[in-house]
Amino acid sequence: MINFQTSPDQYKHWKLKIDGPVAQLSMDVQEDETLAEGYKLKLNSYDLGVDIELADAIQRLRFEHPEVRAVVITSLKPRIFCAGANIYMLGTSSHAFKVNFCKFTNETRCAIEDDSHHSGRRYIAALNGTASGGGYELAIACDEIYLVDDGNSAVSLPEVPLLGVLPGTGGLTRLVDKRKIRRDRADVFSTLAEGLKGKRAKDWGLIDGSFPTSKFQEEVDARVAQVVNLRSREEVQAGSLHHHTGIKLNPLEVESTDDTREYRYVSLKRNREKRYADLTVHGPASDLPTTPDEIRKLGDDYWPLRAYRELDDMLLNLRVNEPEIGLVCLRTEGALENVLAVDRTLAANRDHWLVREIISQMALDLTAKSFFAIIEPGSAFAGNLLELALSADRTYMLSDPEADVAIAASELNAGALPMSNGLTRLQSRFLGEPGKVAEVLAHEGSFDTEAADQAGLVTFSPDDLDWEDELRVAIEERTSLSPDALTGMEASLRFAGPESMDTKIFGRLTAWQNWIFQRPNAVGPQGALTNYGKPTQAQFDYKRT
Amino acid sequence: MINFQTSPDQYKHWKLKIDGPVAQLSMDVQEDETLAEGYKLKLNSYDLGVDIELADAIQRLRFEHPEVRAVVITSLKPRIFCAGANIYMLGTSSHAFKVNFCKFTNETRCAIEDDSHHSGRRYIAALNGTASGGGYELAIACDEIYLVDDGNSAVSLPEVPLLGVLPGTGGLTRLVDKRKIRRDRADVFSTLAEGLKGKRAKDWGLIDGSFPTSKFQEEVDARVAQVVNLRSREEVQAGSLHHHTGIKLNPLEVESTDDTREYRYVSLKRNREKRYADLTVHGPASDLPTTPDEIRKLGDDYWPLRAYRELDDMLLNLRVNEPEIGLVCLRTEGALENVLAVDRTLAANRDHWLVREIISQMALDLTAKSFFAIIEPGSAFAGNLLELALSADRTYMLSDPEADVAIAASELNAGALPMSNGLTRLQSRFLGEPGKVAEVLAHEGSFDTEAADQAGLVTFSPDDLDWEDELRVAIEERTSLSPDALTGMEASLRFAGPESMDTKIFGRLTAWQNWIFQRPNAVGPQGALTNYGKPTQAQFDYKRT
Repeated sequence: MINFQTSPDQYKHWKLKIDGPVAQLSMDVQEDETLAEGYKLKLNSYDLGVDIELADAIQRLRFEHPEVRAVVITSLKPRIFCAGANIYMLGTSSHAFKVNFCKFTNETRCAIEDDSHHSGRRYIAALNGTASGGGYELAIACDEIYLVDDGNSAVSLPEVPLLGVLPGTGGLTRLVDKRKIRRDRADVFSTLAEGLKGKRAKDWGLIDGSFPTSKFQEEVDARVAQVVNLRSREEVQAGSLHHHTGIKLNPLEVESTDDTREYRYVSLKRNREKRYADLTVHGPASDLPTTPDEIRKLGDDYWPLRAYRELDDMLLNLRVNEPEIGLVCLRTEGALENVLAVDRTLAANRDHWLVREIISQMALDLTAKSFFAIIEPGSAFAGNLLELALSADRTYMLSDPEADVAIAASELNAGALPMSNGLTRLQSRFLGEPGKVAEVLAHEGSFDTEAADQAGLVTFSPDDLDWEDELRVAIEERTSLSPDALTGMEASLRFAGPESMDTKIFGRLTAWQNWIFQRPNAVGPQGALTNYGKPTQAQFDYKRT
Repeated sequence: MINFQTSPDQYKHWKLKIDGPVAQLSMDVQEDETLAEGYKLKLNSYDLGVDIELADAIQRLRFEHPEVRAVVITSLKPRIFCAGANIYMLGTSSHAFKVNFCKFTNETRCAIEDDSHHSGRRYIAALNGTASGGGYELAIACDEIYLVDDGNSAVSLPEVPLLGVLPGTGGLTRLVDKRKIRRDRADVFSTLAEGLKGKRAKDWGLIDGSFPTSKFQEEVDARVAQVVNLRSREEVQAGSLHHHTGIKLNPLEVESTDDTREYRYVSLKRNREKRYADLTVHGPASDLPTTPDEIRKLGDDYWPLRAYRELDDMLLNLRVNEPEIGLVCLRTEGALENVLAVDRTLAANRDHWLVREIISQMALDLTAKSFFAIIEPGSAFAGNLLELALSADRTYMLSDPEADVAIAASELNAGALPMSNGLTRLQSRFLGEPGKVAEVLAHEGSFDTEAADQAGLVTFSPDDLDWEDELRVAIEERTSLSPDALTGMEASLRFAGPESMDTKIFGRLTAWQNWIFQRPNAVGPQGALTNYGKPTQAQFDYKRT
């Protein structure tokens, strides 16, 4: 059972140091503090445990340290920044674990870029030594990369030449799509085990600068000071110069039994033998604060922050700890009006740093499970919670004129919560009938079942006679299908329309890596991953497919 | 050894009938005329042999029948349109063959859409019976779909529920990206083995109309007449009404030995033990026609048409018949000026139907091999042939002031030959330095090695002392790497920037399908594909990844 909650005082592998507008996040991986048996985390290589701490640090920067304008990511080990994902860990892990591990590390890299994009905080990778594989992939998720010029340190992606797998934590995509490196150079770099150093790395666009050892710290500090000053000047010009105080993210309280997992606002009932889970999100109370000041005082008890942190933790748990649960039935409980009131507050204060952070972590992640949203009397699928229904693969809404079943849209459905392809969930849903987006947003009041069906917001609306049976059959059918086919199908159907670097990473690069992670050339007895570090050499079947 | 050349008089599975502006392409698969042993092509199911004929028919429509304005794709079997790819064929094929088969069928579907897009010819799927799986994927590649309403016939994608694999011939992508079907409905449809009929299929956007058996032919004919009239009216309005006469596509002459394959303009030398091939394209002569009339008279002997048809056939052969050859060293021979002269003729007559067709088939396909372009004295990498170098993963250009080594750009590099992501190869190459595109296009005369290097057009430019060694080492290194890792790496690096439906199909859907085609849940002893049609049932490992 892997726990995704941590905090700086519990970190084993990272040090987070805040100095006014500058944060330094330093990697110092403890070899023996592994998440599983059978490998040592040498040379700042990482396993999921290391990355859980990194993900936590980034989230804490956002909420606890809004004063930070530059984040320096570096290492406390001499001559090595980071050697990437631990190969022995990968070599001994199941296919499913490898896939889940890569997904989580990908989300962490995307979280860095999301913070940079939304908060304007600049991430600077200070490579005091070699950054190879996932180490360079971490650097390339930052805004700027500086490499020490000590005649030895390099950046490299040795996955293809040494391991027969891909730099799958966004590496390949970010080379050509983020840093826009010429693809012939990206090809050379990605097949060069030893990587590139100094001048050539800079000329090819792999790093932004390289400094001799004696001047490295000084030059990085100078660049950091420049970034901080620039940012302050921009804020002055925009009239948004700030000296904010953060809020504390306290541990989520959770009670578990074998069948259930209960947070304050999120609860789960597992039906393991039937391979599905019932997940319910409880809506907010009616008396929530309406000003940023009051919200700041309430801190992480504020419903949208607490509920979505809980939901995120819940989904991570389901992904990693409950692989056989393939379907999540999503429900909400509460008063539509209370959710809409929260949305009004958030929408009215979108420019406030804390509200912006709260909204940006309401984004739903990508989980390789099927989702059915189930709308019944007492549901609260309004505004931000309506996004849950829109992100589900299907929606079932009870049709019963006697019962009070309704959903409602809010201003937050109009653009504040984009999918990773840049569209809203309504735009994505109505790609073929774009006029319907405005209709839904302009609709007065809530939608009863008939209106929701007319508006195109639900998949099925059985009446009360059929309701139980139809749900039962749908759940049975879904959970009987090939889990692999469902993962591939959902990944293909969920993101129509435009593509972004994120959808390319999760949709394309991940799919290729998953394929390769199954191939005998990587994981068979003679595969490259299996034989890494052994006296034996990989033997390939050279048939190209 | 699979042969990709055929012609209507050799077809076993299709009938191509031309009636003025209307072509009817009817599927009538002969059960026993299979490409391999061990299965029968029942119910108009198909194997690669069936699809090779379809691909040929589409190409012939373009060149031999420019008068055709509507193509009706239908079946000569009662009550069945097409049951899709033959499952027993898939179940008994190697992973590599399945992947190659899907790639070819995908290209055929894309060729239909490419013809519709470039020539304005309208493809109408007349489903006189059930279209399931690849059968519906063929229909959805057409512009319009009509289904007989006989109380029984349906459209369906039963791959996920029945076979545990994806509708990977573009099906999933076209549902949400082409027909823009709501994704919850796409989800339901893609998990419903029996599919949907008549009214619901129409309401959900899966078909464009449904007619009772007694009126089916009449209604389809009426729609075809309407399409033809509309197209003629559009042509009258645009001043482009035409009564063109096509040209004949004669068989390509090819001579093979164990080590070589020689066409008129394309020659191949296989180095099988070293897992690479040398492929040379010979440039045109100096006295080629310069007017569309002369080109039409010359017909398929015209260099650009012949050379690129040969190149396409060569690459198909390499893909399917030479799986162990992982690297192609691309060379050209001839006079730069002669290639540029051809490009001037093509560019000046781009609006002529035949020139348009010639240009549109100069597009390079997507081949899962590495490509190194090698530029030496006597090379002819100019204009359209420069695209070959730009599409290669790397380019090596000899640096020798004594020798005459040069490349040149032409007007055709400015947009006539787009990649499947919609960008030109120059735009794609210089995504990070867009100004360089205009610089290259504005450059006077040819580029010598130094100028080409400065302009960013080559990867490496070794001098004559290092040339042989550097090439040898690069070839040895490339062919030593994991072929799977290279396929995934190249698929990720080749298409930076925007995405299209085609890149989604080849980049994303294909990758997921490849993954699933490896999974025990599909192809293991208890997998769904293995157990299809047997008394035994598939047993899944339900872990979701």
